[in-house]
Amino acid sequence: MKSATIVGAGLVGSLWAVYLSKAGYKVKVVERRPDIRKAEISAGKSINLALSDRGWKALDAVGVGDEIREIAIPMYGRIMHDLEGNLSYQPYGQKGQAIFSVSRGELNARMMTIAEKVGNAEIFYNEKCENADLEKGIVYTINTLTGEQLEFKSDLIFATDGAFSAVRYNAMQKVDRFNFSQQYIEDGYREILLPANEDGTYKLKTNALHIWPRGRFMLIALPNEDGSFTCTLFMPFEGHKNSFENLKSRDQVEHFFKSTFPDFFELMPNVADAWEDHPLSSLALIRCYPWTHGKTALMGDAAHATVPFYGQGMNCGFEDCTKMWDLMQKHGEDWDAIFKAYEQWRKPNCDSMQNLSLQNYHVMRDHVADPKFLLQKKLERKMQEAYPEEYLPLYSMVTFSHIDYADAERIGEEQNRKIQKIMNLNDIEALFENGQIDDLIHQFYIQLTQA
Amino acid sequence: MKSATIVGAGLVGSLWAVYLSKAGYKVKVVERRPDIRKAEISAGKSINLALSDRGWKALDAVGVGDEIREIAIPMYGRIMHDLEGNLSYQPYGQKGQAIFSVSRGELNARMMTIAEKVGNAEIFYNEKCENADLEKGIVYTINTLTGEQLEFKSDLIFATDGAFSAVRYNAMQKVDRFNFSQQYIEDGYREILLPANEDGTYKLKTNALHIWPRGRFMLIALPNEDGSFTCTLFMPFEGHKNSFENLKSRDQVEHFFKSTFPDFFELMPNVADAWEDHPLSSLALIRCYPWTHGKTALMGDAAHATVPFYGQGMNCGFEDCTKMWDLMQKHGEDWDAIFKAYEQWRKPNCDSMQNLSLQNYHVMRDHVADPKFLLQKKLERKMQEAYPEEYLPLYSMVTFSHIDYADAERIGEEQNRKIQKIMNLNDIEALFENGQIDDLIHQFYIQLTQA
Repeated sequence: MKSATIVGAGLVGSLWAVYLSKAGYKVKVVERRPDIRKAEISAGKSINLALSDRGWKALDAVGVGDEIREIAIPMYGRIMHDLEGNLSYQPYGQKGQAIFSVSRGELNARMMTIAEKVGNAEIFYNEKCENADLEKGIVYTINTLTGEQLEFKSDLIFATDGAFSAVRYNAMQKVDRFNFSQQYIEDGYREILLPANEDGTYKLKTNALHIWPRGRFMLIALPNEDGSFTCTLFMPFEGHKNSFENLKSRDQVEHFFKSTFPDFFELMPNVADAWEDHPLSSLALIRCYPWTHGKTALMGDAAHATVPFYGQGMNCGFEDCTKMWDLMQKHGEDWDAIFKAYEQWRKPNCDSMQNLSLQNYHVMRDHVADPKFLLQKKLERKMQEAYPEEYLPLYSMVTFSHIDYADAERIGEEQNRKIQKIMNLNDIEALFENGQIDDLIHQFYIQLTQA
Repeated sequence: MKSATIVGAGLVGSLWAVYLSKAGYKVKVVERRPDIRKAEISAGKSINLALSDRGWKALDAVGVGDEIREIAIPMYGRIMHDLEGNLSYQPYGQKGQAIFSVSRGELNARMMTIAEKVGNAEIFYNEKCENADLEKGIVYTINTLTGEQLEFKSDLIFATDGAFSAVRYNAMQKVDRFNFSQQYIEDGYREILLPANEDGTYKLKTNALHIWPRGRFMLIALPNEDGSFTCTLFMPFEGHKNSFENLKSRDQVEHFFKSTFPDFFELMPNVADAWEDHPLSSLALIRCYPWTHGKTALMGDAAHATVPFYGQGMNCGFEDCTKMWDLMQKHGEDWDAIFKAYEQWRKPNCDSMQNLSLQNYHVMRDHVADPKFLLQKKLERKMQEAYPEEYLPLYSMVTFSHIDYADAERIGEEQNRKIQKIMNLNDIEALFENGQIDDLIHQFYIQLTQA
């Protein structure tokens, strides 16, 4: 029986343990933290997660999707809150299409249980990866409670240990010609829990992702199962009037929320008291290559951590499992071939996923409240309604399809050039009102099919 | 008496030890390797170095330039060798201007002695940096011979431990929001020693840098004091007909040199036997930020390692000393202010230096043998002769001036746009021959002064 060691019992590691077990591998998972199902600890710093089609596909392929659906709350669109408390709504896709809010902690706990039960994987907790022999397939750990040192030797190593992967840092980064970058964005984030009403109901409309876009910064809120919302404030660390360096005192925080998010403040007048409940955290993109060396492969955030603004981090990590599995079907037990094909296929796609995440950071921050942007979204929806087979908006390609990310990025750019031509017409607003926009869409469609 | 620990007794570390001693600091230098002056070891993998004006300025400022001049061989220009063995010559600058070939090992040995004698620095050998407390000013080392662990505590830490800096890797990279990238280029290099003639004379013209440009790869040769030349072959690792993966056997190497560098092969018919004397090595750019944290600053390659194609790696590292020294004069003992100003000033300049190094990689590789490129160089020289005060070619700004690198890059781009206009004229060759080029240069000059 072939064996594999997975470093990191996070979301991707737990799911990949299920896949490998199904393929007949003896799987050991080493995890730095204690068992989150037993201890009262956080599952790592994280905004809530938004599961979408790529994630579901990877879960359903090994029959674990339904168990996750039990804790997933559909969000059918964005609800924008302006300064006066006016709301506007943008559906994410077509009728019935949604992304799903899940709590990382809950999801991770379930995934671990599934890995153990469905996958027969053995999880070793409190085992910190100290080093790895990538070519011989050995993971060296130290137990954080006992100090005991262990070696896990197996036919394969999968590093699913996140953005600050110990396998990557301790071993991969020392391999000659390993390209690597960690790039922080200017903004940080802080979470705030908006509690449920006393009767357990939600304080905001449930089946949506709420955004308070304010130009250079924004607040978002995702629903939790218990009626609360996990809210996240994204803003610059420093160098701007509205930045975390200027939100130090209770008074500053209170004044900031009162004046900037008045409708939110009304729902949570004690926001300043909850300010310190969660740490101020940073956001980085990790890019590297190659992703495999000898018997070892990086998967998920360890290979391609991204900023959270397209909701694709976890979904992309889960898709790594789908793709690796596909390659196992194609190449059998030839892991050299699987690894080579995996990294060559996934690298450009995950680069695109990261590019799109960065772009959406700017879109959400700067444009989502812009009337022109809302009109463009309307145009895109009209296009899709008129030609559902031919035209898929970029957001839908990324979120509701399985088109390779690189293709989605490329097609999206082509579509956008054409859409901008329409949007740049004089009196575009009038064209919407007098219905001429439909003729333009038809012209656009002809261009599209001729391209 | 204030104290400082310098990690790395390489070129920049040794020079900086002299500066700090002069400023009244008690300096300890910890060095991973044994004393290169006593042991028969290499001073690290390295092509020969080309000292130029920025380097000399930093050396002369603390009175050590003359000792280095003793081992420096001036190179006044490039000599290009074509496939038929024809030579062409490009002076680097104006009459008398040169870059200087020095052996890294020799230079490093002298710098260490100078640091000890002139600088009263104490160098601790075989001390491998295991970690550092950047804020408290502690460097943790382990002796590679005895296994003994030491702590070096001081008011300041300077990490001059090169491209793969242990301070950066073990400590700086773990600081939140530290941006970092290591980017390898597609090409590797291998050194070959072309020995002196039996009577000790040089086999090639001495006071020049020799280049055999061949499009996608090139061989260069720099003179050594003993009559030999250190030659370096730069070429892709793989994926090309002419690449290191296709130079494995003795026969392949011999055939390659015979057919590609025939005049070189004639001078060194046993090149295939010397092929394995030096390892195949890779080339990377390291970019990171910030460069300082707490009591610690990165200098030289630890902060901004580059590819060697502009000959600025060491010169730029030495210039870090010049600039840090200038800031010490300005801010006195206020190291927070010095460090902040140092990184803010140097970062954009060293980014430019790296950009220029990468550009020159392409120039040397692809264009240096192009007749149009040679004509452009001629045009640039004519411009400089006609208007020596107003026009300085980019190469001269970088190599023979102390203009900030970022300014050099920007001015160079502006100049290049104008030069390309002239170069794109029909019959540019004829314009040179019939002398009309001088009128064009005058027009160019008018544009330049009006800009």
